[in-house]
Amino acid sequence: MWGGRFDGGPAAVMQEINASIPFDKRLWRQDIAGSRAHANMLASCGIISEEDKTAIQSGLDQIESEFEKGGIPEDLALEDIHMTVEKRLVEIAGEAARRLHTARSRNDQVATDLRLWVRGAIAEIDAAIADLQSALLTRAEEHADSIMPGFTHLQVAQPVTLGHHLMAWFEMLRRDRSRFSDCAARLNEMPLGAAALAGTGFAIDRNHTAHALDFDRPMANSLDAVSDRDFAIEFLSATAQLALHLSRMAEEIVIWASQPYSFVSLSDEWSTGSSIMPQKRNPDAAELVRGHSGRILGCLQALMTTMKGLPLAYSKDMQNDKPPVFEAFDLIGLCLAAMSGMVASLSFDRARMREVAADGFSTATDLADWLVREHGLPFRDAHHVTGAAVKLCEERGDRDLSGLTAEDLSSAASGLAIAEMPDLSVEGSVNGRSSAGGTAPLRVKEAIAAARKDLSS
Amino acid sequence: MWGGRFDGGPAAVMQEINASIPFDKRLWRQDIAGSRAHANMLASCGIISEEDKTAIQSGLDQIESEFEKGGIPEDLALEDIHMTVEKRLVEIAGEAARRLHTARSRNDQVATDLRLWVRGAIAEIDAAIADLQSALLTRAEEHADSIMPGFTHLQVAQPVTLGHHLMAWFEMLRRDRSRFSDCAARLNEMPLGAAALAGTGFAIDRNHTAHALDFDRPMANSLDAVSDRDFAIEFLSATAQLALHLSRMAEEIVIWASQPYSFVSLSDEWSTGSSIMPQKRNPDAAELVRGHSGRILGCLQALMTTMKGLPLAYSKDMQNDKPPVFEAFDLIGLCLAAMSGMVASLSFDRARMREVAADGFSTATDLADWLVREHGLPFRDAHHVTGAAVKLCEERGDRDLSGLTAEDLSSAASGLAIAEMPDLSVEGSVNGRSSAGGTAPLRVKEAIAAARKDLSS
Amino acid sequence: MWGGRFDGGPAAVMQEINASIPFDKRLWRQDIAGSRAHANMLASCGIISEEDKTAIQSGLDQIESEFEKGGIPEDLALEDIHMTVEKRLVEIAGEAARRLHTARSRNDQVATDLRLWVRGAIAEIDAAIADLQSALLTRAEEHADSIMPGFTHLQVAQPVTLGHHLMAWFEMLRRDRSRFSDCAARLNEMPLGAAALAGTGFAIDRNHTAHALDFDRPMANSLDAVSDRDFAIEFLSATAQLALHLSRMAEEIVIWASQPYSFVSLSDEWSTGSSIMPQKRNPDAAELVRGHSGRILGCLQALMTTMKGLPLAYSKDMQNDKPPVFEAFDLIGLCLAAMSGMVASLSFDRARMREVAADGFSTATDLADWLVREHGLPFRDAHHVTGAAVKLCEERGDRDLSGLTAEDLSSAASGLAIAEMPDLSVEGSVNGRSSAGGTAPLRVKEAIAAARKDLSS
Amino acid sequence: MWGGRFDGGPAAVMQEINASIPFDKRLWRQDIAGSRAHANMLASCGIISEEDKTAIQSGLDQIESEFEKGGIPEDLALEDIHMTVEKRLVEIAGEAARRLHTARSRNDQVATDLRLWVRGAIAEIDAAIADLQSALLTRAEEHADSIMPGFTHLQVAQPVTLGHHLMAWFEMLRRDRSRFSDCAARLNEMPLGAAALAGTGFAIDRNHTAHALDFDRPMANSLDAVSDRDFAIEFLSATAQLALHLSRMAEEIVIWASQPYSFVSLSDEWSTGSSIMPQKRNPDAAELVRGHSGRILGCLQALMTTMKGLPLAYSKDMQNDKPPVFEAFDLIGLCLAAMSGMVASLSFDRARMREVAADGFSTATDLADWLVREHGLPFRDAHHVTGAAVKLCEERGDRDLSGLTAEDLSSAASGLAIAEMPDLSVEGSVNGRSSAGGTAPLRVKEAIAAARKDLSS
Repeated sequence: MWGGRFDGGPAAVMQEINASIPFDKRLWRQDIAGSRAHANMLASCGIISEEDKTAIQSGLDQIESEFEKGGIPEDLALEDIHMTVEKRLVEIAGEAARRLHTARSRNDQVATDLRLWVRGAIAEIDAAIADLQSALLTRAEEHADSIMPGFTHLQVAQPVTLGHHLMAWFEMLRRDRSRFSDCAARLNEMPLGAAALAGTGFAIDRNHTAHALDFDRPMANSLDAVSDRDFAIEFLSATAQLALHLSRMAEEIVIWASQPYSFVSLSDEWSTGSSIMPQKRNPDAAELVRGHSGRILGCLQALMTTMKGLPLAYSKDMQNDKPPVFEAFDLIGLCLAAMSGMVASLSFDRARMREVAADGFSTATDLADWLVREHGLPFRDAHHVTGAAVKLCEERGDRDLSGLTAEDLSSAASGLAIAEMPDLSVEGSVNGRSSAGGTAPLRVKEAIAAARKDLSS
Repeated sequence: MWGGRFDGGPAAVMQEINASIPFDKRLWRQDIAGSRAHANMLASCGIISEEDKTAIQSGLDQIESEFEKGGIPEDLALEDIHMTVEKRLVEIAGEAARRLHTARSRNDQVATDLRLWVRGAIAEIDAAIADLQSALLTRAEEHADSIMPGFTHLQVAQPVTLGHHLMAWFEMLRRDRSRFSDCAARLNEMPLGAAALAGTGFAIDRNHTAHALDFDRPMANSLDAVSDRDFAIEFLSATAQLALHLSRMAEEIVIWASQPYSFVSLSDEWSTGSSIMPQKRNPDAAELVRGHSGRILGCLQALMTTMKGLPLAYSKDMQNDKPPVFEAFDLIGLCLAAMSGMVASLSFDRARMREVAADGFSTATDLADWLVREHGLPFRDAHHVTGAAVKLCEERGDRDLSGLTAEDLSSAASGLAIAEMPDLSVEGSVNGRSSAGGTAPLRVKEAIAAARKDLSS
Repeated sequence: MWGGRFDGGPAAVMQEINASIPFDKRLWRQDIAGSRAHANMLASCGIISEEDKTAIQSGLDQIESEFEKGGIPEDLALEDIHMTVEKRLVEIAGEAARRLHTARSRNDQVATDLRLWVRGAIAEIDAAIADLQSALLTRAEEHADSIMPGFTHLQVAQPVTLGHHLMAWFEMLRRDRSRFSDCAARLNEMPLGAAALAGTGFAIDRNHTAHALDFDRPMANSLDAVSDRDFAIEFLSATAQLALHLSRMAEEIVIWASQPYSFVSLSDEWSTGSSIMPQKRNPDAAELVRGHSGRILGCLQALMTTMKGLPLAYSKDMQNDKPPVFEAFDLIGLCLAAMSGMVASLSFDRARMREVAADGFSTATDLADWLVREHGLPFRDAHHVTGAAVKLCEERGDRDLSGLTAEDLSSAASGLAIAEMPDLSVEGSVNGRSSAGGTAPLRVKEAIAAARKDLSS
Repeated sequence: MWGGRFDGGPAAVMQEINASIPFDKRLWRQDIAGSRAHANMLASCGIISEEDKTAIQSGLDQIESEFEKGGIPEDLALEDIHMTVEKRLVEIAGEAARRLHTARSRNDQVATDLRLWVRGAIAEIDAAIADLQSALLTRAEEHADSIMPGFTHLQVAQPVTLGHHLMAWFEMLRRDRSRFSDCAARLNEMPLGAAALAGTGFAIDRNHTAHALDFDRPMANSLDAVSDRDFAIEFLSATAQLALHLSRMAEEIVIWASQPYSFVSLSDEWSTGSSIMPQKRNPDAAELVRGHSGRILGCLQALMTTMKGLPLAYSKDMQNDKPPVFEAFDLIGLCLAAMSGMVASLSFDRARMREVAADGFSTATDLADWLVREHGLPFRDAHHVTGAAVKLCEERGDRDLSGLTAEDLSSAASGLAIAEMPDLSVEGSVNGRSSAGGTAPLRVKEAIAAARKDLSS
């Protein structure tokens, strides 16, 4: 298959393996922005003339407009986006263009381009997470008191509210945004001016360029500036962690949509059907979110493995930083958009969720807690008594505690005098769990209100 | 960035995340081959008529020729290569085409297509490895007695021959081919006939199809047939292990080409230069081989992580099997071709390698061995005596054992009567290591001869 | 925490990071076996005397017995198991012991030890997989005609039999055993005799040692012999793939045991309970199998990443081969034993599984197939007609096709004359899918019989 | 091997796979601290009496003292550290102890314990990184003007100073500390009070406990509190990135110590020798640092893979969070301590480094820059002229530019009038690169001064 491609002999293979233009062309806007800032600084420092600067800037304007309309030319012989832009600039601006590469090298140039790109990518992802959070708030508000089973070990454990569950997802995403924000802050130092690896003898002003490109400061060490790809790895780590969260949500959607659960049905837009089973709503989007997270983990692994053990300064291995970063970004973008769409359009079956929530003696803990509170039993003893009571109900063929009487309980508690019974309904249970961060609708509504305030600030 | 793409609303995102045609179009030949075999079998079993079969086959002929000339149409609405082919077939062959999907489903179809593709990919990789092995044999023969330092811990340890070193690479590749061969044998069972997941009620003949597609047999269990992606994971495991080998070779080339080593220089074709440092031959191809191996590890991880914990039978997550398989294949193809080209054109500096091989008392072990053989010392004692002798030479400012006399040695050995000295040259050392598998030129030449015979068989 | 451990200054840290005896002591039996074979060969070749050999062998006997009783001493100063054994041997056998290390080095010694260990580990794993397969056969036989829903996308798709599902698991394990078998065959070449890296000048007989240690042959290249860890990586790859399979089975058990499914209940022995929810059977063992598979993937990744880019020959990084190999082995052993125990004791609820299997028009495909077979409709048209029929039933509030009449169907098929209806029960469906590898009880029983024969051969 | 361990039948396997006490006993201090805070809060809220509180606290004091002296008992039947502590507390404090578990569960307890542990681990790592940074500053100061070759592609590129190179390492570590600091800040929210998953009906005061345990606040959502392991993953991500940095440093030390480089020699304490090659200083510690980083990547992968796709809330898979966290911590601790020791004791050969730095026309860029500055050539033209000049020198057999005359240069520049030559010595080169962040000794000293100030603040 690739055999045929390489008929031209070794040189063709070398060009094929060496050229990055097929993927680094995505950096074209960043590359032009970097060149603009660099040319302005060179002129401001008197290293090139004002005329040269003007020629370069209007050349870059023209290239920007050409690429926007016609796309970026992919000439493998020019290797990368830097040479692709410079070559065209020389055609347009002549000798002035030949002065642009003064006091810089492709090593600091590409590191700068990619930082700018990742910074922009983080802003896009942050906005997409916020969209998903907003969708979650809407649904959580709607279901602040819808009762569903809370699971541990995928076993019914205690009743919770759907609003509470959706707000757990919200919290996961809040941390994701915080991680991306830290990553964006940490990466915002500028490599430009490090030149090949050692700095330059020209009297450049790196603060000038940094300011123009909205970097907080130039990087402190020129060797580090061209060798460092922490920012790309940290971006991938944050993306992977976000992907894990989306995968967990997707797993729940797939399970909830399965017939034996029937907690949710997916809208037509977010599922695929089957011409012979019209009731079938395959949760393809959720499955693909889950699957894509596996690939995003692979992207992180790929770059970490590539960087491990590379001596300073630049090595060509590092050209492999871009494909995983781009792939992870594209995949996470699809995942976030798909998850927002699914969340907004999921149709929950409250009755079914409530029915399962009541199954399996899910309010037994409430009984134990009541024995502690009202009758002063140590918790471990209250547990024991409750166990005996549940066993009694089971032996009668019950699946919940509604048939339990005060007499039953007294006898389970070795004769403790129990005159009346607590409310052991699922509603009573969720309303009771009103400790800070608990599932009581009151708490959930407070959490939603606080989240909405945060989100809009 | 993807924000803009999704202006059309949720449906567009769903189509984008769901469609596999942008990448699974690579399976078009396999998909057509599978349909041919299926149609022939259906006719042979009397499930469709001969006329229908003929219409289908000539329709497939036409599609094959169209796709070869014009490429594969990428209509996201058709989702995948299967529907892309079938839709066109219906246009060409009408009702006959609507009978083709009898007794099969996309679940068994895609599993079959991908197995066929991987089988072909293995054949290509095997041939490319053989090319590299062949290049190694040529160079090993040329350098069967060229002396170089053998390293452990990247410290000069004992002299070896370059031919021996290159034959170590050969051996690594021999195991790789063996692994691919096992993988090809194990995957050669046919999913087709499993239908969606449960088999079919039509009286099909799976042996007929299996024979037509060169599979050893139909898979034994229909659920397993559509759920299994072992073959893709095993293919990626074998590819990753090959990539690790190529990365180790590349690491050595990078180090050998570094000025302080200067063991090799790369040809112009396999290095990049610099307009201001004409002596500079950046080993970009070797670095990229090393870097690509990181990405291939990521591909393996991606698919393993994706498959972990999926319930039977088909889940849409599994659509993510193809991108890592295709990416790993493309990368390893480039790596193999580049490594073959580099190996064939490396220029070794024998004098420099021999000089370093003699440095650092690299033949001290030979002295110790001689003391065991000729003077009956236990090996641990011989070690001790040799250590003392080396120390003596060091104190004299020597960097090798050439200045050591029999008297020196007697005194280091506490007065043991030593009358004459062994040959402690690097040539003596390598010639002496003639145990089976050892570095002696004699052994190396035998190994090359045996390898050449294997390779051509 | 480790701060305190290192009070003794740098030397203590060096000893701590450098010593492998805390983990490589697991190789003690292999190390002694290797020394036995080596000493016998040295004597047989006349390199050491018969007396020395005898002294060494009886010393090794004594050490074996000491270690068996008292455990292996962990003296960090002796670094590894090789020096730990040799030091003790010198104490017991004196000068003879000082001759043992003739013509070998720790580099070929450790490579040999680990190969022997992995070979043994594979035999243990193979036996444990066979145990699990045997448990599966027993349960599959018992449930060859128990009907359950077959899922795709975790949506009810078509009825299958539980026996068929369990046999899919059996097939996955069959491939695992085949992979381990290939790995065992490929690793069975002996590094011993490669010495440090270059072979040796002593006239050793490597075939003698290889035969004694049950290796197929000595490795062909001494540099490769001490540099290669393919066998450990391949072992981890096979283990990871097995772990993925167990994780998939465990995922299904967790889902099946969830209350809304209630397909299975776990025995007391294989679940954990809760004192207040006596009905709760947390599937901890299944969850841990799933979790351990994540760690086993990490082990594979760890070793692959470590080996990537290491120059030949031995580097100390390679000492890190053993912890992931040992960890993966221990974890997979627990997983296999736990899975065998769970499978043997799972209690399936046939009625519940059958009930869900009938839900959701799961036999619609059977109707479509019947229209093709009996009325000659092209499959795509039969699909369409069936879809219309299902829609009709849905509109009547039905959840299956039992209420569909021949008249209904005729009208859905635009007036096609349909006089009688096919059997659309779940029993009819599974019995009908009798193509090779299909879910029909007849086929499942054949598959079980064949498997039982294979397993006992 | 594990076969024998499981003779006791399935129950033994279940206990073995289920119990976490063999590893989670490391959490004992955190578990006791959590219980202290919980008991105080319960008393302060009137949920338990002051007497019970006092009995619990003095019981915990006694357990702390017992465990400190005698170690933590490992009874698999008690499963984990929580039950191990509680069981002993009941023995000591009786009924009061049976009241301790009121309003909490093991789910929120273990999440709290592990957060506390990771918080402490980060503090330890941060201090160890600071130690390494301090060692680097000392050596950088010493070598602020020692000249060495700067490499790209492991090819000599431009002269730099060793101080500058070591300060690049310093910068990498600065980012690591910043990442750990962010991680510590983000994790500092308290799960305690979430109880099993839904919060509790007891009127607890989570702010009270949070304050006592130095958490910034209670976690906002009880489901999230018991389901979240982001903090552990983020800790592993930061550790992996630090490990990659240490691996890069170690790679350089291994290369620099190789005979053909001979830039450094390792002290006896930080290398292993060989009794027969006394000059040999195997850089084992550096190799192990490199190797350990592979295992740490495996730890990250293990936990990420384990968490991927788990539904809320607690699943037993999550018990697998602790082994990779503990392993990564232990390994990174060794790596940091070893790297500090190596850095402090490396002996650099200035003469050798300067010699290589001058090799290969490494100051050609300085000539090109001079042509731009002094003669107004566009940079691309200056490059071209310099290339021609270097070629001329090469043809004369020179390896540097010292023989180049003004006439030579004029002629290479097509007759441009050049009267005098710039300083093209390596000293001139490094002194000239005085742009911000450049390698000039002046800049390096400034960077060291600033770093020293940061480090002590």
